[in-house]
Amino acid sequence: MAGYDNITFLSDYGLEDHFVGVCHGVIARIAPNARVIDLSHAIRPQDVRHGATLLAQSVPFLPRAVHLAVVDPTVGGERGMVAVEAGGQVLVGPDNGLLVWAAERLGGVERVHALEKRAYRLEPVSRTFHGRDVFAPAAAHLATGVAPAELGPAVDPAGLVRLTPLASRVEGGQLHGAVLLVDHFGNLSLNLSREELDRVGVGIGDPVEVHIGGQTYRLPFEETFSSVPAGRLVLHEDSFRSLAVAVNQGRAAERLNARSGDPVVVARVTE
Amino acid sequence: MAGYDNITFLSDYGLEDHFVGVCHGVIARIAPNARVIDLSHAIRPQDVRHGATLLAQSVPFLPRAVHLAVVDPTVGGERGMVAVEAGGQVLVGPDNGLLVWAAERLGGVERVHALEKRAYRLEPVSRTFHGRDVFAPAAAHLATGVAPAELGPAVDPAGLVRLTPLASRVEGGQLHGAVLLVDHFGNLSLNLSREELDRVGVGIGDPVEVHIGGQTYRLPFEETFSSVPAGRLVLHEDSFRSLAVAVNQGRAAERLNARSGDPVVVARVTE
Amino acid sequence: MAGYDNITFLSDYGLEDHFVGVCHGVIARIAPNARVIDLSHAIRPQDVRHGATLLAQSVPFLPRAVHLAVVDPTVGGERGMVAVEAGGQVLVGPDNGLLVWAAERLGGVERVHALEKRAYRLEPVSRTFHGRDVFAPAAAHLATGVAPAELGPAVDPAGLVRLTPLASRVEGGQLHGAVLLVDHFGNLSLNLSREELDRVGVGIGDPVEVHIGGQTYRLPFEETFSSVPAGRLVLHEDSFRSLAVAVNQGRAAERLNARSGDPVVVARVTE
Repeated sequence: MAGYDNITFLSDYGLEDHFVGVCHGVIARIAPNARVIDLSHAIRPQDVRHGATLLAQSVPFLPRAVHLAVVDPTVGGERGMVAVEAGGQVLVGPDNGLLVWAAERLGGVERVHALEKRAYRLEPVSRTFHGRDVFAPAAAHLATGVAPAELGPAVDPAGLVRLTPLASRVEGGQLHGAVLLVDHFGNLSLNLSREELDRVGVGIGDPVEVHIGGQTYRLPFEETFSSVPAGRLVLHEDSFRSLAVAVNQGRAAERLNARSGDPVVVARVTE
Repeated sequence: MAGYDNITFLSDYGLEDHFVGVCHGVIARIAPNARVIDLSHAIRPQDVRHGATLLAQSVPFLPRAVHLAVVDPTVGGERGMVAVEAGGQVLVGPDNGLLVWAAERLGGVERVHALEKRAYRLEPVSRTFHGRDVFAPAAAHLATGVAPAELGPAVDPAGLVRLTPLASRVEGGQLHGAVLLVDHFGNLSLNLSREELDRVGVGIGDPVEVHIGGQTYRLPFEETFSSVPAGRLVLHEDSFRSLAVAVNQGRAAERLNARSGDPVVVARVTE
Repeated sequence: MAGYDNITFLSDYGLEDHFVGVCHGVIARIAPNARVIDLSHAIRPQDVRHGATLLAQSVPFLPRAVHLAVVDPTVGGERGMVAVEAGGQVLVGPDNGLLVWAAERLGGVERVHALEKRAYRLEPVSRTFHGRDVFAPAAAHLATGVAPAELGPAVDPAGLVRLTPLASRVEGGQLHGAVLLVDHFGNLSLNLSREELDRVGVGIGDPVEVHIGGQTYRLPFEETFSSVPAGRLVLHEDSFRSLAVAVNQGRAAERLNARSGDPVVVARVTE
């Protein structure tokens, strides 16, 4: 097998402990020639939805790789551990919905295998650090050319755990959705698209009303945040193609007192 | 000399400044083919014990490497700077106890050399950034195949500074110890082992009392934290083989208002 | 063209999102053999001066590289995007002053080209993530051997945006300056040098008065912070050759309630 030159790595391990470094060490022992690209280790602890969202947004920009992802609130419990083949690449992690959205971005789930073979684990496997003992070793062995089918028995792709996307709908000139992500700059990505805004007749330069947290804000829909003066609210399409609420050179999250998951309504203003 | 393909790097430099990046740069200039694996740069500032604990826990999982570690509260003062050979690997850092526990995990201190030779430093050496000017260059030269004895005169291993481990004892059905580490998930690793718990007759499924911070908590000893319902306290053996207090899908550190170094008593419950 | 083995990367993207990881992915697709050295991604959001300072301090210690830097408060607006050649290396980023101080440390700006050619961008270019879509691809193509002149038309170096350095002056036995940086350890780097202190007649061991935030502190000028007892204030020359106020084994920033940009006066004590 040809294997993979790259392993990408996303987790909720944080960078204050040695968890991420130890996984890098385990990988380097098994696959000394693989490069590891850290996507983020600041997924909110045990927030599978957060991890699945960032992973799915990232994969279109990543090289051909084994994508290792670990956000695993029920580690040591009954959930499965899987290698998911999609678009000629492999995703490795727990079977809790973390991997599926990314697999769909890569072209859809093709085959799934359980990570059961002891030869590809670090024995004895601990009860609480499967990133080190199961997932990182599996990713590293895949990088060296081990076939996914070698890692354990095939699993029916239809049985994979899938997360329900945050609900959104267009109704009476309004978009009903939620805050998908709050980023480092305090921008609010919504689970709403520019196409949906088109459908309610809002174009560039038009004012909209955003309802969030019991408050209503009026702001323009613009090409980007720097289309408005510094300090002003703006709705724009962000770099991952979500509608986003931002403050030019400021922080929308604090201004609107908003956080991930909050319901949002974006309404056309008819005067 | 064969040298080393890998340099691991642990420090209290944090990631908000350029200290870690500059050390990577210094290494890349001297040893362009070495890979640097960051273990953690979030050691609590100047907390040598914290660094020594994470380094010792990590080394069994790392590839053969030069292990560069810098937690150095008395940088510029009288403490030594050393390369410690252990188990066919080398640890580089200040002589303040940071390296010794890791060396013991690797098989024990074999030889020690002082980092004195100017040719292997970045001259002029600053008074406050020996990571950049002494330790990173030494690690990089070792990676390229320079022998430890080339770096400076031999030092008597018996003279290395050693940290006193946190005290623990078993007494009258009770384990007396302390919180060794609080991790990113709020789990409390104790300086107590499952073997010690066996000795006081506690087995899987048995209730224990944990005394900490003037409070007493009753919780079960289980295989892992997911053995209890979400939100419940549990005592288990963690992935580095310490007894640990956790909350399934929660944070024990906040629940128990506990921090690293706090004394803990774990007691068998006799009803 | 020979290209570059190394790309260094500094930004204000933070590590909690996937922005940095995605840029690494984009680079790995274009320049699979380049090594990326992260300098810092914790530049204060949109603080160009902070980024420019850390980048300029870092470059003397870095290997020959393409230096990618992104702190870009007006992304999507009118500012230019440039590749700056200096000292046989190349800096890539927005034309907002971020790159110029580093270019000067490398020997001075030699040639500048705008990043305009679509073939070296990730199309369609988003309005808000030029790090991913313009700057990282340009850096990666440069690493593979693309000449800067291939990226777009030449720009007059005299037209580059330049930041005004924080003002300082020596007046009547006093140094007037400002806090340049507050580091992870709470040390305050000043935009003042040991040479300026010499000029007002202060030598090692002499007492000085530091005026900051409406308060006056008396402390000695010493070789390093460990020259004073633990917990005591000290003025010393730090590892990047700035005068710095520190507390041995403590945090000067909290003790003096100081932050970056605060005006400072250092005065000789004449008794």
